Formats: sequence, structure tokens, C-alpha cells
Amino acid sequence: MTTDTFPKLATRETEIGGVKVTINGIAKGSGMIAPDMATMLAFVVTDAKLPAAVLDAALRRGADRSFNAITVDGDTSTSDTLLAVATGQGAKHKAVRSAADPHFRNFRAALEALLTDLACQVVKDGEGAQKFVTIDVTGAASARAAKKIALSIANSPLVKTAIAGSDANWGRIVMAVGKAGERADRDRMRIAVGGIAIAEHGEAVRGYDEAPVAHHMQGSDIHIEVDVGVGRSRARVWTCDLTHGYIDINADYRS
Amino acid sequence: MTTDTFPKLATRETEIGGVKVTINGIAKGSGMIAPDMATMLAFVVTDAKLPAAVLDAALRRGADRSFNAITVDGDTSTSDTLLAVATGQGAKHKAVRSAADPHFRNFRAALEALLTDLACQVVKDGEGAQKFVTIDVTGAASARAAKKIALSIANSPLVKTAIAGSDANWGRIVMAVGKAGERADRDRMRIAVGGIAIAEHGEAVRGYDEAPVAHHMQGSDIHIEVDVGVGRSRARVWTCDLTHGYIDINADYRS
Repeated sequence: MTTDTFPKLATRETEIGGVKVTINGIAKGSGMIAPDMATMLAFVVTDAKLPAAVLDAALRRGADRSFNAITVDGDTSTSDTLLAVATGQGAKHKAVRSAADPHFRNFRAALEALLTDLACQVVKDGEGAQKFVTIDVTGAASARAAKKIALSIANSPLVKTAIAGSDANWGRIVMAVGKAGERADRDRMRIAVGGIAIAEHGEAVRGYDEAPVAHHMQGSDIHIEVDVGVGRSRARVWTCDLTHGYIDINADYRS
Repeated sequence: MTTDTFPKLATRETEIGGVKVTINGIAKGSGMIAPDMATMLAFVVTDAKLPAAVLDAALRRGADRSFNAITVDGDTSTSDTLLAVATGQGAKHKAVRSAADPHFRNFRAALEALLTDLACQVVKDGEGAQKFVTIDVTGAASARAAKKIALSIANSPLVKTAIAGSDANWGRIVMAVGKAGERADRDRMRIAVGGIAIAEHGEAVRGYDEAPVAHHMQGSDIHIEVDVGVGRSRARVWTCDLTHGYIDINADYRS
């Protein structure tokens, strides 16, 4: 059984030492779905010629900031797969000895962009998803803390249902920051929705213009920024809202 | 705003050194609700005469196994409150010097029973809840690990929606055990629903009688037992299913 509603493809052209190479990727999956059903699968192919260790390093780094930074429901499949293959066909570029080679930098950036593109397509096709949500956490004590806070916001049923209801409910965001269990300073916390600051120093910004915020929340591409006010680390994750469609798919699949 | 649908009361009569004392409790709350709305509040009153430190110790111990073992949606309120008062009125029992006093044992047990009663009432009134779910995890490496695994199962949207759909979906339970990140042995794992073993050694029990399991899942009081096969520690938590009612309350509250 699959609940995908559209094919997920991405492609990037880049170069290694001036020689053009192509990266293609496909993915399936529309949630971190349980092992007895559809799972997330992604395949990436490039005509670049790369030692396995180099491709592996670039893939791990890229996956951390893409597929490991998305969540639909916080549930993880036991058989999620991200596979990359470098055929070496049709690309006579300078040899790449390590992932740190300067002439490998563009490829690495292109790979990360492609992985992010695919990962975001998976989220956009999340079960029942009507809105695509980007969450940026800044001012955290460490990169790990930033990601944990961002995922806590992204996985909170109350945040996700508020977004489904087009409500810029910053109280629920503060709650999700709190339950992440990482350092955050309520008195310095800053929350912006659609680029507009709505809460600062732990309270609502007085007299902010609600109209553009409401307009943003009515849209399908939501941006939430949270500065937790304790450090300089950041993380970005992507998620979707929690709607009746998710319940339809996951509770009513037998009827 | 409150989404409670019934009043939550509990009472226990017990004795200290042979003298009868009463404990009464009330609670409100129907989810770990965000700070700008209703929150979980519970008040316990007894006519026993108890030093603050003794009552505090008994309350903390009891809360760990009751209010800290329930979850509706994994979200926590910033102002959940559990308060206990001992008036000392009307009870001329032997003095209690410490929570370890043998003649305090019955009171402690009664308090824990009362707290569990109240906590389960909160879950039964969970937002949108149609089923009350008891999850017992055994065979864990430590009590902490057992509770983490139990809460991972209890908070999994896929497990909660499967329960809403009356499906004994053990694959989703295995997934939730896995994502808890604690030690578990898939080859020794055992899952029972309604007291009937449905999965052992990582696969479905062959030829188990599906009818009583299906009948159990159609009911409103669901019991899930998971032995993770690595140790001797256990934990019990309570939760509810995830239904359209939860989305109605939390996404559509503005319309």
C-alpha cells in the first residue's frame, strides 16, 4: 500500500573541476510509515566518478540536513532507505580523492540541494498534509539542541493542528520549545511567523500587524522562526500540518 | 476555554495506625493543553495529619506512577498542577515521622490508587478520545527505559490512529519500540493485545485466534502488553486513541 499522491523527482547539474556532471534523484513515501506499509525510499544517481567513501561522506552530510531534518508525524519507518550510486559514465572529470577536495565543493552543494528538494517533496506529500512548514531555530546552545527544539516544534500535535487551523498560535510553539528539554531563555525568546515578529521577551509583540500574519497562515507555505536566546547555533527542519486527512489514512484504512 | 466533558473525582478511605482517614481528589484537564487554554489541574485533600515532607514524598512517588504516566498527545502544559493538602482535621492517628513508616504504608498505597484513578479519568476525557489504552512494557533494561518505551508507544500517532481504527497493528507497536532508542531484542519481543499473544520472536503468532483480539479492539478499554526481552524492568502508562475529534478541537477552534 502506498499513500503517495505524486511522483517525487529532482535533478541538479553541477561540475567537478570544470566538467559537467548530473545528479538525478527519485523518492517515494508520504510519512514515516509503519513497517507493514509503504516506506520512504530515495535513490540518487550521478554520472560522476567518485570513490565510495567520498560519495558516502557527501551523502551522510547531505542527509543530515535534508532527510534527517523532515518529519511528518514523528514516527519512523524501520526500512527508510536513501541510496546513492555514482556510475562514472560519461564524466571525465579530475579525480576526487576526498570529500574535502576543493573541486568537489560544488558537487557536494548540488547533492545537498537535490536531497533537500526531494525531502521537501516527501513532506509536501505527507499524509493529509495541506500546508508545508519550514521551522528555523536560532540562538540555541548547540546544533544538536537547535535540531531537537526544531523537531519538538515540528512534531507537536498542538502546533501541527494550530497550523492546520491557520492560527499563528505562538503559545503552543513556546510549549513545544519547553518540552524539548534543551536550554532556552523565555525572557529572550523571539518568534516570527511569515517574517513578522509576533512574540518577543516571552510575550506578544504589542500592536503588530495581524493582517499579514493571518494572510501568511492562510497560505500553504508556512515559515516559523524561533530564536531561543541562549547561544549561536541553528537548525532548519521541515514538516506539515496535522489534519483530518491523516486520521482518515491511518485510522480508517481497514474500513 | 476548557474541553473537559465530565467532572473528575476520586476518593479513598484508608487508615494510619488503625485510625480511619479519607483522601479526596479532583482534577480538570483533557489533554496536555497549551498554555493559553485549559490546563491540567488536580487537587488532593486529606484529613490525615502529615508533615509536609512526608506528604511531599508520598505525592512525588505516587505522581510518578500516575500523572507522570499518562499522555494524551505528548504535549505538555506549562502550568500543570498537582497539589495535595493534609488538614490534620478529624484524624487522631499515630504520628507519621517519615514516608517509610510502616503504619504509613496503607495511606501511601491509597494515595497512589487515588492519583491513578484521577489520572486515568483525565485520559478517558482526553480530547477526542474514544478508547482508553493501558500499555504495559516488561523485560526492559531499566525502569527508565521501560517508561520511555511505553511513552513512545503511547505517543505514536500511528499506534494511536490504529487503535482508533480498532486494528491490532503490532507492526506499528514494534516501530514505536524501535524509535524509543532503548535496548530491545526484536527476536525475543512479545506483544499481547487483550491478553492474547499476537506477536513473538519478531513475527506474528501463527494461527492465533483473531476473533477475541478483534472483539477486544472494538471495545473502549484496550490493553497492550509488550515484553522487549532484554531485562526485568517494567512500566505502565495510560493513553487514548487519536481521532477526528482531536483535530476538531485543536485545529478548528477558531472557526
